[in-house]
Amino acid sequence: MTASPSAAATPVRSRLLVQKFGGTSVADVERINAAADRVASALADGDRVVVVVSAMAGETDRLEQLGLEIAGRPPPREMDMLLAAGEQASIALIAMALMERGCAARSWLGSQVPIRTDAQHTRARIEHVDVEGLRADVEAGVTPVVAGFQGVNASGDVTTFGRGGSDTTAVAVAAALEADECQIFTDVAGVYTADPRIVKDARLLEAITFEEMLELASLGAKVLHSRSLEFVGKYNVPLRVLSSFSNAGPGTLITTEEQAMEQPLVSGLTFTRNAAKLTLVAVPDMPGVASRILGPIAQAAIEVDMIVQNIAADGHADLTFTVRREDYKDAHKLLAHAAQELGAGGIAGDETIVKVSAVGVGMRSHAGVATRMFDALAAENINIQMISTSEIKISVVVAERYLELAMRAIHQAFGLSEAPREET
Amino acid sequence: MTASPSAAATPVRSRLLVQKFGGTSVADVERINAAADRVASALADGDRVVVVVSAMAGETDRLEQLGLEIAGRPPPREMDMLLAAGEQASIALIAMALMERGCAARSWLGSQVPIRTDAQHTRARIEHVDVEGLRADVEAGVTPVVAGFQGVNASGDVTTFGRGGSDTTAVAVAAALEADECQIFTDVAGVYTADPRIVKDARLLEAITFEEMLELASLGAKVLHSRSLEFVGKYNVPLRVLSSFSNAGPGTLITTEEQAMEQPLVSGLTFTRNAAKLTLVAVPDMPGVASRILGPIAQAAIEVDMIVQNIAADGHADLTFTVRREDYKDAHKLLAHAAQELGAGGIAGDETIVKVSAVGVGMRSHAGVATRMFDALAAENINIQMISTSEIKISVVVAERYLELAMRAIHQAFGLSEAPREET
Repeated sequence: MTASPSAAATPVRSRLLVQKFGGTSVADVERINAAADRVASALADGDRVVVVVSAMAGETDRLEQLGLEIAGRPPPREMDMLLAAGEQASIALIAMALMERGCAARSWLGSQVPIRTDAQHTRARIEHVDVEGLRADVEAGVTPVVAGFQGVNASGDVTTFGRGGSDTTAVAVAAALEADECQIFTDVAGVYTADPRIVKDARLLEAITFEEMLELASLGAKVLHSRSLEFVGKYNVPLRVLSSFSNAGPGTLITTEEQAMEQPLVSGLTFTRNAAKLTLVAVPDMPGVASRILGPIAQAAIEVDMIVQNIAADGHADLTFTVRREDYKDAHKLLAHAAQELGAGGIAGDETIVKVSAVGVGMRSHAGVATRMFDALAAENINIQMISTSEIKISVVVAERYLELAMRAIHQAFGLSEAPREET
Repeated sequence: MTASPSAAATPVRSRLLVQKFGGTSVADVERINAAADRVASALADGDRVVVVVSAMAGETDRLEQLGLEIAGRPPPREMDMLLAAGEQASIALIAMALMERGCAARSWLGSQVPIRTDAQHTRARIEHVDVEGLRADVEAGVTPVVAGFQGVNASGDVTTFGRGGSDTTAVAVAAALEADECQIFTDVAGVYTADPRIVKDARLLEAITFEEMLELASLGAKVLHSRSLEFVGKYNVPLRVLSSFSNAGPGTLITTEEQAMEQPLVSGLTFTRNAAKLTLVAVPDMPGVASRILGPIAQAAIEVDMIVQNIAADGHADLTFTVRREDYKDAHKLLAHAAQELGAGGIAGDETIVKVSAVGVGMRSHAGVATRMFDALAAENINIQMISTSEIKISVVVAERYLELAMRAIHQAFGLSEAPREET
């Protein structure tokens, strides 16, 4: 048989999508069926789909709790073996739900794909995704359902990627397959200019850059696993965050800075409540002091976020830094020791602070952003306790009681509730 | 350095044990710790141990239920993927509990060992256990913890062995390792002469033969998975059933008939409540009748157990057979159809019958066993409705209301509550 030339005119291109469903999107039988409906609908539209699934919501916690009850510090290899059981159940259930809808499907464990990782249990990094099997499935009209969060190391041991690691799986699989789009289904409609629970007129963003998402994610706006964004940046995977509810909109597209249509001064705001501040008062101002203060803190694996040092005229300095609130007491003890050694004036601390940040790639090319933010806070009589800035981010520390007011004031100052327009 | 000759005198031999813990023996954190204590105690005695573990009690049911809610007839490959998640969690937890006790341990999935099976999902058969990895662990002083119930087929798909399949894993691993003993820890103290809930003075058996166990297991005394016993018979694995409670006794040793010290007439009694009886009355007595009656029943995948045909003087016969109680209604319908076709007199049925069986290898060489059993029932005025005998088993059908009385009467008639002595 030969194909008729006219039939081969303009073939409609079928997109290859990676669709990732998180724990809340496969939380129970009803949500699993809804997720399968979304996949089936994309297939009915002529797209080809590779599905990536997390464990059912609560399952990873349940398993982890069992491990913690049995061993104070569960050995990481066994913790990975334990936790990876969660996705094994959900991939089978999603594959069943797809087949129930007449869509050929097959579940894939991380070790079956295989998704090869390094040997760092509980926070392994993906080294290589072997997509031949997945591609063969797709070409045969079978929808592969891949376990998120898990891979296999060179010894054949099961590894996991840390909480939220299913996003990383999705992006890595999309990158390896050179998929047209990686769609992250979640329980929110997309990425907002600010947390809508804090700022009522927060607006859903149509698009945001990777760099901005990375800052927002690392600052606590946990829509996506930070590491997945590194992958996105590295492999240039078109990524979309959208709601798993069937009537939801197109969500938020994560673009590269080059692709971005607009570059607003500020794209979004974020905050972290989980902060505490410590100040070592009147430290003799001499070289090496900061490292003698912060060295023991770092050795105790306490993460230090912002650091500010003010030098007074009398040859003494105040060193202030922030830590996670749960590390406050430990850090305070270590600081007391350093204060004695250095002959410092004393220690001040505050466990009731928050950090508020504005993020936007437009900051790179525009001055005056920080001033506008500080003015907005001043107009509300909110005292700024610390400031830290990076290329696309400005963060301030304020008293916790001002959190909502500060967020609203900054949100309004940058006109974030209105549709974006390019500032010149 | 050279070893002093005297030091090498009589090396104490360290036994290699396979210890299998079922679902109730790893049902919660407390039981998992108790199981780990048992393993640690064997290691402290100088034995080397390979552990085989089932899913935590209830977990396989929970997962299966999810599958059934999503798909009316879940595809078997995905069902295996789903169910195998249960053991993945429990092997990790047992390995953690062992390490918490200072015993080096490592969990092994069926696919990691690997335990190679055929491709029959949900009831796969083990083809080969590759024990090199397990042996290397044991030689390095590491206790391997192997997932029961699961293996991997030639395509790399996860397979499972059917309910109770962890016993089969344990026996297959023990056979492949040529272990000194395979110990099946369970929630009973061992194998009894009869169910102690029915017969109060039932006695724990020190030993029983494989053949007897196989008959008892297939008759519903579910101490062991039947298929595991086939392995035992084939590979001559010394097997012991014992309680996972730490203060329990040595349990019951399963021996070959050749090894058996005593060959009592009857070793134990068993029964099944899940039975129903159907009779096709006054069927014309001609060749092929039985198959025309039972053929459609077999085609409907209804299992027929006992069959009895009485030939009357008038050239008509009554054909009676038993089925599982849940198949009674379906079988009745099929029988009505056959009755019409054959011009039979009618159908009689009874859903309130039970089967009681006596099992013993001594029957092979001794006559009069059946008579003693029938006499015991007659003495209690219990009517025997059907009889079936095999080499080492006699079964009778009686009305359900006589179950306890019949069991006690037969138990007493064979002196089963007393310590065994060889009959001559």
